[in-house]
Amino acid sequence: MSDIEISRRRLLGTVGAAGATGLALGAVGGAATYAAAADAPATALTTVGSTAEPFRGDHQAGITTPLQSRGHLIAFDLAPGAGRKEAAALLRRWSAVAERLMAGEPAGDGDAGVALDAGPSSLTLTFGFGRTFFDRTGLTAQRPTALDPLPAFSSDQLDARRSEGDLWVQIGANDALVAFHALRTVQKAAGDAAQVRWQMNGFNRSPGATAQPMTARNLMGQVDGTGNPKPSEPDFDRRIFVPAGGQHAWMAGGSYAVVRRIRMLLDDWEQLSLKKQEQVIGRRKSDGAPLTGGTETTELDLNKTGADGKLVIPDNAHARISAPEQNGGAAMLRRPYSFHDGMAADGTPDAGLLFICWQADPLKGFVPVQRKLDRGDALSPFIRHEASGLFAAPGGPKDGEYVGQRLLES
Amino acid sequence: MSDIEISRRRLLGTVGAAGATGLALGAVGGAATYAAAADAPATALTTVGSTAEPFRGDHQAGITTPLQSRGHLIAFDLAPGAGRKEAAALLRRWSAVAERLMAGEPAGDGDAGVALDAGPSSLTLTFGFGRTFFDRTGLTAQRPTALDPLPAFSSDQLDARRSEGDLWVQIGANDALVAFHALRTVQKAAGDAAQVRWQMNGFNRSPGATAQPMTARNLMGQVDGTGNPKPSEPDFDRRIFVPAGGQHAWMAGGSYAVVRRIRMLLDDWEQLSLKKQEQVIGRRKSDGAPLTGGTETTELDLNKTGADGKLVIPDNAHARISAPEQNGGAAMLRRPYSFHDGMAADGTPDAGLLFICWQADPLKGFVPVQRKLDRGDALSPFIRHEASGLFAAPGGPKDGEYVGQRLLES
Repeated sequence: MSDIEISRRRLLGTVGAAGATGLALGAVGGAATYAAAADAPATALTTVGSTAEPFRGDHQAGITTPLQSRGHLIAFDLAPGAGRKEAAALLRRWSAVAERLMAGEPAGDGDAGVALDAGPSSLTLTFGFGRTFFDRTGLTAQRPTALDPLPAFSSDQLDARRSEGDLWVQIGANDALVAFHALRTVQKAAGDAAQVRWQMNGFNRSPGATAQPMTARNLMGQVDGTGNPKPSEPDFDRRIFVPAGGQHAWMAGGSYAVVRRIRMLLDDWEQLSLKKQEQVIGRRKSDGAPLTGGTETTELDLNKTGADGKLVIPDNAHARISAPEQNGGAAMLRRPYSFHDGMAADGTPDAGLLFICWQADPLKGFVPVQRKLDRGDALSPFIRHEASGLFAAPGGPKDGEYVGQRLLES
Repeated sequence: MSDIEISRRRLLGTVGAAGATGLALGAVGGAATYAAAADAPATALTTVGSTAEPFRGDHQAGITTPLQSRGHLIAFDLAPGAGRKEAAALLRRWSAVAERLMAGEPAGDGDAGVALDAGPSSLTLTFGFGRTFFDRTGLTAQRPTALDPLPAFSSDQLDARRSEGDLWVQIGANDALVAFHALRTVQKAAGDAAQVRWQMNGFNRSPGATAQPMTARNLMGQVDGTGNPKPSEPDFDRRIFVPAGGQHAWMAGGSYAVVRRIRMLLDDWEQLSLKKQEQVIGRRKSDGAPLTGGTETTELDLNKTGADGKLVIPDNAHARISAPEQNGGAAMLRRPYSFHDGMAADGTPDAGLLFICWQADPLKGFVPVQRKLDRGDALSPFIRHEASGLFAAPGGPKDGEYVGQRLLES
């Protein structure tokens, strides 16, 4: 494997140097041709490839990392007979390959080479433990109450085979081959210790597709993520990350992920007029501004009425019901991927949102908001929750640690 | 829909201006954070979004266009009762939306808004006719013999429901939402005239993921596409595009696409050692150079033997068998997407290559090469052809024309 390693390092060296010195980005107006692309400056656009996210830190990567253009979710169950010891060895292996891959290096001997040539491309791997993990590893006493099953919601049509799991890995990268390679590497490194339970693929907008960084759009065309808390806000950490001194020391700096495969009934949705769609959401489609005016970040004027005396943002509008001020300040960091798995058997698009939200406590984040949405969200007829997972992602690994070590060696 | 139109134009105006003046690409070394992304210069990386491919020309877009990072393939059958008139109206509608979308504009009234904010992102839509189209439209006399069914190959395990079709659309873009939006728009514009027969999704490396433009890698990790003919070569047009004065005037400037869903048996492949993989392919994995030495573009030394007296590039190596010089100069332009549709029922990855190749005559391009591969390719045990299509893509529309007009109004 030494050939590959040398080649990879050489290429990454080039990328790194480019990233460090800054580059003139050649203007490419109008159409490019096959020939023109081959002649393009060798230095164009390399920050996409050269950006590396840190594996170590207070928190795991992939939570506050900017949304990447490709994502994979994969859940595993421990193999029959595998317990705490095997799980610890697995997390040690996974951490080792994650650290290498996130630095843009091969995973080790037997690296399949799919990510060769590319830089790390903002790759992140984020690891979480499901509720069932703790009994199977004899760590029941370490199980957070925050992993208690989510309440059932009336609109749930959950497929148990695509829900939950002992272990969960979230992978994101700004290159599809880098992300796929990480997925395969994680799966291979599972060895005999764990078996894949389910696996899902997602995507977001490409870096540079918009003229400036913008809030994401989902496959319904809606600006999605406007109200997200920002790391610069004073209470961000308190809302998103588990503090030290809580129920379990091993979760300090960690966060809980709620994962929902939300199918969008796009054929139905797209039959609504623009005006009707905007009333369902409570925001303008063009720019995400509230129907009560302003820009995307203007607060909703929930009491404003129109000339007809009716509320401008209807009673059951999605934005009203999910507004933090309507939910006791509930806050979660939504960090979704869209998904599109082709055509379903009934001819409709098997597409929607891999909703992922992060919070210090699901009972103060996802649950109260979803409970309200479940009662009266105008969006409900156009979506279907098809799978669900709740995972505890421990804090980031410190030097010399593997992810989850404070749990597995507690 | 006027709000959306205005907003879209405003945003694209910004992108266009940036593309025209050239931009300093801010260096982003090391890790970016959520907060940093929001503070990033508004002008970074916009050529990804701002690049537009021409809808009109001698040839359709999407053939010599550089590989985009996202692709969708969709095949339709004409609806029962729909004939030449309905097909002509359909191609007129499709052409109208394709031209708008490729320019980065909304498709028209009822545009779902999914591509809002983004530039055209190198979007291409390429339209083709399958063999069955001609009988159904009373155009049997205009059916090219080049659309005669491909021969059966011993390694075929074709699923008829995911093969062929009256009409085929290839969509590519460097942004996933732009590509998805185009797919939905095409499907919606089909109206009552045609029904979806099959649909597949693919991807390639992101622009900027590598330090310089490089030949693609496939999901086996192999450099794939090295021997592709280049538009700058004198016989490129003759090999790839149908000349004027041929069997049917309407195909002048057109090209034939062979589409194969090639499943890769990655679990088996990845168990091979690097050395064994390289012998199967006949090229080095690290850089795609022939095992006989040199760089990626060095010609294979097919007669070279090693110290053991054996051929360095084995008799059944994929690169030897598919080498143009071994196939009477057969040439095709391979322009594939990788695919990954999650996990198959047997737990293996449902992943591989959406092989698409373009040629002036399939009997001189795909067929002779595949026939040889079928007899003795060392790669065969690791791949499975699961679906197949053969489509005639007419020449590019001239001003005022829609795609296929010269056929449908002949």
